[in-house]
Amino acid sequence: MKGTKINSDLLKERNKCTFNPRELTHFLDGGEQKTKDRKEREKFFLEDPELKSKVPMEYLSHKEKYEENVRKACVIFRKVQELQNEGKAGMENYREILGGQLGTAILPDGNPLTLHYVMFIPTLLGQGTVEQQSEWINRAWNAEIVGTYAQTELGHGTFIRGLETTATYDPKTEEFVLNSPTLTSYKWWPGGLGHSANYAIVVAQLYTQGKCHGIHPFIVQLRDEDTHLPMKGIIIGEIGCKLGMNGTNNGYLGFKDVRIPRMHMLMKNSQVLPDGTYIKSPSSKLTYGTMIFVRVVLVADAASYLKKAVTIATRYSAVRHQSQIKANEPEPQIIDFVTQQYKLFPLIATFFAFDISATWLWEVYNEVTSELEAGKLRNLPELHAVACCLKAICTADGALGVEQCRLSCGGHGYMTCSNLPNTYGLVTAMCTYEGENTVLLLQTARFLIKSWQNKAETIHLDTVKYLCERESKPFEKSVTWIISAMKEIAAKKVELAALHIDERVKRGRAYEDAWNETSVELVSAADSHGRAFILQTYQNVLSGIKHLSPELKKVLVELQELYTVYTALRCTGDLLRFTRCEGKDIEILQSWLEQLLAAIRPNAVGIVDGFDVSDEILASALGAYDGNVYERLFEEASKSPLNAEPVNKSFQLYLKPFLKSNL
Amino acid sequence: MKGTKINSDLLKERNKCTFNPRELTHFLDGGEQKTKDRKEREKFFLEDPELKSKVPMEYLSHKEKYEENVRKACVIFRKVQELQNEGKAGMENYREILGGQLGTAILPDGNPLTLHYVMFIPTLLGQGTVEQQSEWINRAWNAEIVGTYAQTELGHGTFIRGLETTATYDPKTEEFVLNSPTLTSYKWWPGGLGHSANYAIVVAQLYTQGKCHGIHPFIVQLRDEDTHLPMKGIIIGEIGCKLGMNGTNNGYLGFKDVRIPRMHMLMKNSQVLPDGTYIKSPSSKLTYGTMIFVRVVLVADAASYLKKAVTIATRYSAVRHQSQIKANEPEPQIIDFVTQQYKLFPLIATFFAFDISATWLWEVYNEVTSELEAGKLRNLPELHAVACCLKAICTADGALGVEQCRLSCGGHGYMTCSNLPNTYGLVTAMCTYEGENTVLLLQTARFLIKSWQNKAETIHLDTVKYLCERESKPFEKSVTWIISAMKEIAAKKVELAALHIDERVKRGRAYEDAWNETSVELVSAADSHGRAFILQTYQNVLSGIKHLSPELKKVLVELQELYTVYTALRCTGDLLRFTRCEGKDIEILQSWLEQLLAAIRPNAVGIVDGFDVSDEILASALGAYDGNVYERLFEEASKSPLNAEPVNKSFQLYLKPFLKSNL
Repeated sequence: MKGTKINSDLLKERNKCTFNPRELTHFLDGGEQKTKDRKEREKFFLEDPELKSKVPMEYLSHKEKYEENVRKACVIFRKVQELQNEGKAGMENYREILGGQLGTAILPDGNPLTLHYVMFIPTLLGQGTVEQQSEWINRAWNAEIVGTYAQTELGHGTFIRGLETTATYDPKTEEFVLNSPTLTSYKWWPGGLGHSANYAIVVAQLYTQGKCHGIHPFIVQLRDEDTHLPMKGIIIGEIGCKLGMNGTNNGYLGFKDVRIPRMHMLMKNSQVLPDGTYIKSPSSKLTYGTMIFVRVVLVADAASYLKKAVTIATRYSAVRHQSQIKANEPEPQIIDFVTQQYKLFPLIATFFAFDISATWLWEVYNEVTSELEAGKLRNLPELHAVACCLKAICTADGALGVEQCRLSCGGHGYMTCSNLPNTYGLVTAMCTYEGENTVLLLQTARFLIKSWQNKAETIHLDTVKYLCERESKPFEKSVTWIISAMKEIAAKKVELAALHIDERVKRGRAYEDAWNETSVELVSAADSHGRAFILQTYQNVLSGIKHLSPELKKVLVELQELYTVYTALRCTGDLLRFTRCEGKDIEILQSWLEQLLAAIRPNAVGIVDGFDVSDEILASALGAYDGNVYERLFEEASKSPLNAEPVNKSFQLYLKPFLKSNL
Repeated sequence: MKGTKINSDLLKERNKCTFNPRELTHFLDGGEQKTKDRKEREKFFLEDPELKSKVPMEYLSHKEKYEENVRKACVIFRKVQELQNEGKAGMENYREILGGQLGTAILPDGNPLTLHYVMFIPTLLGQGTVEQQSEWINRAWNAEIVGTYAQTELGHGTFIRGLETTATYDPKTEEFVLNSPTLTSYKWWPGGLGHSANYAIVVAQLYTQGKCHGIHPFIVQLRDEDTHLPMKGIIIGEIGCKLGMNGTNNGYLGFKDVRIPRMHMLMKNSQVLPDGTYIKSPSSKLTYGTMIFVRVVLVADAASYLKKAVTIATRYSAVRHQSQIKANEPEPQIIDFVTQQYKLFPLIATFFAFDISATWLWEVYNEVTSELEAGKLRNLPELHAVACCLKAICTADGALGVEQCRLSCGGHGYMTCSNLPNTYGLVTAMCTYEGENTVLLLQTARFLIKSWQNKAETIHLDTVKYLCERESKPFEKSVTWIISAMKEIAAKKVELAALHIDERVKRGRAYEDAWNETSVELVSAADSHGRAFILQTYQNVLSGIKHLSPELKKVLVELQELYTVYTALRCTGDLLRFTRCEGKDIEILQSWLEQLLAAIRPNAVGIVDGFDVSDEILASALGAYDGNVYERLFEEASKSPLNAEPVNKSFQLYLKPFLKSNL
């Protein structure tokens, strides 16, 4: 397909683009050098012939998929080691290579060894003593052993205090004895646990001197380093097929009197002495950091999946012709249907909004982490609250957005080779893991209610001050008005939810029951809060941009306006109910939206070109840069093993005997 | 798993149920006898050992899946013949067995032979002459040949007038010559086309005497009846993997000078005489019927998938315990979280709403079809308009609803064995096929605008009269008020869209461009119209119900109220903008909703029990009647071929060499 000519519709689109997409690429990467580095890293992995499969993965059996994934995962690990040796691999790169956009391009079904770098090593670093680190880190870092992280159980996910696996200290042998007392206590879900890892950090309830001290992390050997056979007392396997990520080898794990040395408990925070004496961790907030880090990453990932999906759908919509706008005219590009623009362009803008929020979150996370290391905890709750609602909003909207892109490609979007179904499988999973979205929104809500009650006095990051500094301005067709209106909505929802909790308490309900009964409103308040935050952050960044050409700046402003108006039009009920917006103003917003769709139309392909997602990463017959959609669909079909034979054996075996029996 | 005891939480739920679920089952089936018949039919198929697979399908390779599906499809066909011989198989049964709830339970990846009964035979019947029927129907009916229906092309789906395949009449040999002049003209998508069918009805542009007469259906032999090898000039294969339905063997098909006898054109409507003279069909509306029929079926299917998904999610939510409402109390059933109730109970109610609309549609379809046979076309456009928006709304909400059920089950919902991912794959496909949803809503909008313009004068079915009989009543906490408000909204949206089209035309835009530029509003108007219709129909049926126990009636009314209030709360912007509803009224609706959730809570499990979806059809580890969720998850995991060996070969092949190289 390389070297073929570019589809003529895409050529036309590119000719009419009013700005230079390359400038957008550098802007998004953070500079020309960073673009270069990224492309070099992508090339290093994506052009390695060892990382290509003979037959597309989707045609393999579940078992074959796993085997092929282990093969590639080992190649990836070796290449990561090369980068390490050249000093080119930081923690962010691991993530990108093992689970981000690049990792997903190499292993669309997920990497069975990812948790080794992403959870096993970081937990050793974060929770091991210096001695434990010197014992384990080298072996892990050099990949002499491969580890995973086993926390979630069959019956316990969200509420980790409810975990049932036990680690009981036996002072006679100075060992912990691990057990799975019930079926629901079996570990369930950890990636790579099934047949890949030979070690795991296991989170279990610590019992010593007859008392339970809550959950703690332990290093457990799962399989013999030589034979890979499960160790004595280890009951282990994979959990089976899933909606996506069928190469990650998610596993289950049960313990039957599994003994580990005392020093296999990670003791940086809490300790068990040889005689069984328990020494408590000084602060329970210290482990918060990792949790927030992962959520920061998920916001960025949600943006990145959306970027991929809108690139595919926008290019396809420029190539695809269908139906008629006017009789006797040729079939138009489907991107000329305003309903199609309405499906896609707000999602292009959403990518920018989420990407900007992800950057903010990353920077503030780093600041707060430095404060933490200096012993200051004051900003942690606020960061936690904003990370929770951003994770929930960005993964939920990201999933809906990817699915909307898929549906906008009609039947061809349903094809695996569009890469939209697989992208959805990855992004929708994020709505559940690392904090289920509704649970997270309720955590944000708890912070909002508290801030509302104490008048946001202890707040420093400026994410909730508006709760107590409310203003209600008459409608104005401007981004600024919409942002202040969104804050007004969030503030009034928080106030109203607080009031309804109070009323329920006054009617005699326990506070917790009143909270639960008001939770639909609380979720809605947290959602509005997060959206107001995203809009405000978008505005802050856009208004601060310098050194951009006026052509690109204009496009970025149009996209920001589009996202803002689109957000407003998705909550007209809130606008009319809580702000000074009136019915006729909605018409103004609607027509503003339509104008923006028309303004963005000529640049739509240019914008997604500027995203600079390579064909290898898009991995989509519909979305490639050259736009040769139909040729690629055919080429992909030709790879099906079923098409290798003119007659499948099922004809002789089943169909012919049946048909002939009816003669 | 059979004979095991019932989960104690489910037992408790069933004990507190206030009505008899069996009564609900009979109500939904349409009587006790119909329940009996259904269960007998289900048993006939689902208990046949030949229709079970040794290994769950998801573990097989794409090719193995296909082969296993052909095996089962032949068994199913044989059983259908048995039913035929006993006079027990009507057209509805075929659909149910081949593609509906029952068919999906037997072949979750779809049946490669379905189109034989669902499209091939009906098209022969509907468009073949008496002579053609006598030649083909018997062979098809006896399953001596197996056919499919090839219309959609790689480049042409929605707009069938744009199809490119040509059938050119050659009077010298009295044959048609079929060709695929371009890549985009290849047939693409027909089920069973890849390697299964040996005949197809092919839709192609008819050329005779140098003139194109538009698209017509032709019978084409694809494969030799004995060897199954493709016939000369037939280029054929499958299109590859998809998001779902990977057993349906969707295929592609190209023609290179393929000659077929003149009498292979289906000539009931139009004809080509031996000399090439073309005789036109008397009416082009005669083929409308089938299209509407399929949409009627899809509305019923959307309801049915939702029924399955809410059954699974509701039972799971009663069994699953997680988190805390109050400190120091045991983890509650997650169904006790109001946010969870808010996710599930409106979907339970949505099933009823859609099911009732499907029944209305089915009855009116039959009436209008009888009228058609008597030559009366007057109700066809109105039926078409309502079928379009109902198909769009029910499949879109159905897909979102199934996905919401899946997400409400947390991580376990992501497991294939929950059967929620596969159910989503089936229901989301319906948003695209048989009329893409946005396209369909715009068709409804066209009818609404026309009705508005001519004051609904030619209207008889009472679906759009309200456009011109508007009333604006002050808010009232009642179902009746909400329904009239929804109509008011739809009417005002139609009016506003018509106005905006006019304004654009006055500003000099062509009508077609003005239409396109107003299309976001038009879609929204059609959507509101459809929702008002669903609410009104729900109300009509509920208020007309007799012979039900007061206990069941009470529950049905609560569900209707819930669906109605829920619908209203999803469009508060419209309510505040277009009706006399005010901000404070929204609070009343919100608290009504919360009361209804609480009222339904004790009966939730009883209601889904009343749906009487058998464990074999649910096919879900999370949703089975006995509620042994965790045991079943484990049992399913044990079926993975990866778990048959303690060490997978990839360890020796790849992982060990890699780990050891780092020592």
